[in-house]
Parts: sequence; structure tokens; C-alpha cells
Amino acid sequence: MMAGNSSTTGRRRAQSAADLQSFLKGRAALVDAAMRAWLPPASVAPTTLHRAMRYSLFAGGKRLRPILCLTAAEACGGATRDALPAACAVEFVHTYSLIHDDLPCMDDDDLRRGRPTCHKKFGEGIAVLAGDALLTEAFAILSSIRPTQRHSVATFTRLLAEAAGSRFLIAGQVRDLEAQGHRIARAHLRAIHEGKTAAMIRVSLRLGAMSANATPGQIRALEIFGQALGLAFQIVDDILDVTQTSEKLGKSAGKDIQAEKSTYPAVLGLEASRKEARRLTAVAKRALGPLGARAARLLAIADFLLDRDF
Amino acid sequence: MMAGNSSTTGRRRAQSAADLQSFLKGRAALVDAAMRAWLPPASVAPTTLHRAMRYSLFAGGKRLRPILCLTAAEACGGATRDALPAACAVEFVHTYSLIHDDLPCMDDDDLRRGRPTCHKKFGEGIAVLAGDALLTEAFAILSSIRPTQRHSVATFTRLLAEAAGSRFLIAGQVRDLEAQGHRIARAHLRAIHEGKTAAMIRVSLRLGAMSANATPGQIRALEIFGQALGLAFQIVDDILDVTQTSEKLGKSAGKDIQAEKSTYPAVLGLEASRKEARRLTAVAKRALGPLGARAARLLAIADFLLDRDF
Repeated sequence: MMAGNSSTTGRRRAQSAADLQSFLKGRAALVDAAMRAWLPPASVAPTTLHRAMRYSLFAGGKRLRPILCLTAAEACGGATRDALPAACAVEFVHTYSLIHDDLPCMDDDDLRRGRPTCHKKFGEGIAVLAGDALLTEAFAILSSIRPTQRHSVATFTRLLAEAAGSRFLIAGQVRDLEAQGHRIARAHLRAIHEGKTAAMIRVSLRLGAMSANATPGQIRALEIFGQALGLAFQIVDDILDVTQTSEKLGKSAGKDIQAEKSTYPAVLGLEASRKEARRLTAVAKRALGPLGARAARLLAIADFLLDRDF
Repeated sequence: MMAGNSSTTGRRRAQSAADLQSFLKGRAALVDAAMRAWLPPASVAPTTLHRAMRYSLFAGGKRLRPILCLTAAEACGGATRDALPAACAVEFVHTYSLIHDDLPCMDDDDLRRGRPTCHKKFGEGIAVLAGDALLTEAFAILSSIRPTQRHSVATFTRLLAEAAGSRFLIAGQVRDLEAQGHRIARAHLRAIHEGKTAAMIRVSLRLGAMSANATPGQIRALEIFGQALGLAFQIVDDILDVTQTSEKLGKSAGKDIQAEKSTYPAVLGLEASRKEARRLTAVAKRALGPLGARAARLLAIADFLLDRDF
């Protein structure tokens, strides 16, 4: 009996993992198709620029932020397709930030998702401009959003600009740059991660919810979820940088240590970092109570992100 | 009588030149105050970033684009203050584009408006990020615009993103980068200038007009004006690079020749370039017919830009 039960549980778990994988793959394909439609074709002049934008945008990213955007919309009872413009916009912003972060004057990375970084492939000048163009295009995409009863296009724009701006995403990168080679306190590390990672994950969920005409209560729940999930996600990233091979990560493993970057494992130790990631994931999941059964996908994604090994 | 007449004409001219100078100074002061209010104070963390943004934004620019924005609004019967957010947004975009253009991987300039360029003062990493932050903030500013009866916030956003995007402003910079050290045809040179200069001047006028609830006819007139004025402005810039001293320009004179940049004087010769600037200014002024007497300031600005020596 015990064996039978545990085998059933095992099958169920495998089934639900397979189900989630297929869900994530399907949503990523939707996002890719929509992004492809948004970008000027690589044949449009200046072709180098448009090729560089495509190169970085279709480099095999996990599409975490746009998938969270779409899933938040569904969790608020909205249609997936209404959230697609916001989903594309957050992925454009994410990709721009990676291109600029990889530059020699920033993190100086040669490898991203297993391929040469944008500046390695196209030169630094084009990489700066491809990033600029993706950021600009993100706002063009938002301007096409159909406002809902509760949420105007201006609010979509304001929230994305805020999350991507000088107090969050860019602030995180500045703090990261300035912290290199210094020992920093845990609070400072958290501020870096809030800016570099959590703010964009939070706004992805929020814009998705808004495209579903979400209520203030739904938005509040998703904001708490996004904040905790974003921090947990970055801690797991830091842990994987220490424990995984470059091949598995598709980027230079151990890079953070080499660059004397402050990470959770460096500041807290590996075991305490794992514990903190689990704690934050639990906080995130609890926050979704008000969404009821519709939150199932988001709960599954939170578990999946905690347990991933890539 | 003749002497008397000519002396009267001279006095009138001096009077109207002084009048225009005072108008430009007053409008620039309005724009500066509004931009100052938009920016996070230099004391807000991360302070280096916010100091770098202020450093470049308040480096003594002429504020041509925001002044054109305000003056277009007035020419369409609108209130100056309603056009201030759009005016700030176009100057933020212009400043970001200068910071990135000056980078070592682009034009590699050490001097801008008589002072060290942003990356010389703050380092390359912070300069890239200060540019990114100004671009992002421009869209935050647009999200605060009050829509008019004819023009939605989404349209403001879409038009600015288009002018600043991969087919115009950034395309111009890519074409410029790729043309360095090559002889290029006149049509190619014009394409560079349309992207790098005319598109942003055109959209500055257009957004100003929109904030005054402009009619399609008024917008069409200002678009033609902006396109021709933008090209004339850039040709005069090219001429001044050849004929003026660095001190007068506040940037490295003769830089274009050193960098083997294609300019109008290099492609057409100095005299033909002057003639083309005059021709384009005449085209621009003619386009303003439909605006009637309200266009007086814009006409004066067009003459002023043609005759400037800085």
C-alpha cells in the first residue's frame, strides 16, 4: 500500500512537472511569435542593428518575465492574448539590460546563453545601440495596448518606466558596479537584487494583471508575490553560479566569484542561501491566497524556479 | 531719408534680434525648471547615477528641441505649460543620445559643450547607464501628459518611440558609425541627418502641437517645417565644425574631418552647403503658411538657426 501510494504520488508529480514544462514551452512560443512580429525584419535598414536586436532577443532565453506576465493575466481571469504586448515589452527591456550589462565597461561578459554576447558578435557600438533600440521599442509596444476599464495606457508606461528606471533596474546595476571588489552587507546585496531582478519580475506580473483589468486586491497580491519570487529567483541564480558548470548554465560559471561580485552564497554561505530562497518562495506562494484556484500555475512556477538546476 | 530708413531698419532688426534672444532665454529657463523638477534630486541613491544624469542634462545645451516643442504649441493656440512635459521628454532623449554618441565605442569625444563628456567625468559604465536612465525617464514623463480631445497619451508615446527608435535616431547613429572612413553619396548623408537630427526636431514640434490639440492640417505644416529645418540645422552644424574654433563651439572643432566623417561641406563643398541650408530654411518657412501670424516665432527661429555662428 505504502509503495503503491508513493508510486502514485511519484507519477502525479512527474505528470504535473511534464504538464508545467509543456505550459511553459507553449507560452514561450506565443511570446516568441509576438516578439518576432514586433521587430522590424532583419532585412530592414540599418540591417546590422536589426540583426543585433534579433540576435540577442532570440538567444534562447527562458522568457520567465513574459510568461509571468501572461500567467498573471490568466490568474486574474483575463485572456492570454491581451497580455501579449506587455509580455513582449518586459522581455525587450530585460534583453536590453542584459546587452548593456555584458559590455566591457560593465560586467565584461563574453558568453550569454551559450553564445557570444552581443558586443562580441557585433562590436560595442552596435551593442550599445541595439540595447537602446530594444528599450525604446518596448515603449512603442506599450503604446499599442488596449486600455482596460481600470487601467490606462499611461499607467502601463509609467510603471514600466519606473521599474526599468534610475531607482530600480538601473539603480541595481549601478549598485552592482560600485560594489565590485568590496565586501558588502546583506542589506546592500538585497538592494542590488531588488533593483536588478525583483523590480522587473514584479512589474511583469503587474502589467499582466492590468491587461486583465485586475482589481486593486489582485494587484496587491501579485506585487507581494513578485517581490518575494524575484528575490528568491536571484538567490537561486547566485547559488547555481557557484554549484553548476558553465555548460549547464550557458554562461561563464563561477564568474561572480572571479569578478569579486557580492552574492548570497558569498555573504550568507550556501546553506543559509538555500534556506532563504525556500523562505522567500513560501512567502511568495502565501501571498496568492486572494487569487484562489486560478493561482495554481503561478504556484507551480514558484516551486519550479526554486528547484531548477539551470 | 535713405540713411534714416536704413537706420530705422537696422534698429528694428536689432530690436527683433534682442526680442528673439530674450524669448529663447525665457523658454530655456522654463524648460530647465521643469526638467529639474522631473529628475530625482542628486541626493537620491544611487547618487553617482543621478549626478551623472544632471551633469549631462544641465551642461549648457541650447534647448532647441524643447523650445521648438513649446513654440509649436503656442503656434497652434495652446498654452506653453501644457507642452512642458513633452518638451522635457524630447530633451531627455536628446541628452541620452549625446551621452551614448560620445562614448569611446562610438564617436569617442572628450569634450561636449566645453566640459568633459559624461564618460570622461563619471566613467563609461555610469555614462551608459545615465543615458539609459534618461531615455527611460523620457517615457515616464510622457505618461504624465494630459491627453487632448484629438491626441491620446499612447500617441505621444508611439511617436516619440518611433522618432527615437531603430528606424530614425538610432538608425542615423548606426549609419554614421558605419560610414566613418568611407566616401558616401549625398543621399546616404541625407539619410544619416534625417535620422540623427531631423526626426527628433520634427517630433519635438509635433508633440508640442499635439499638446495644443492641433488639427491634422496644423500638424502636417509643422512636420514639413520640422523636416526641412532639421536638415538645414545639421548642415549649418557641419559648416560650423569646419569654420569655427573649438572655443566658440564648446566642442572639438574639425573633429568631423579628423574622424573622417562624411559631412555636407566634405560631400558638396562649403558654398553649395551654405546654399542648401538657405534653400531648406526657405522650404521650412513656406510650410508654415497655414498657421498664419501665430507662426512668427517659428519663422524667426528658422532664420536665427541659419545665421548662427555657434
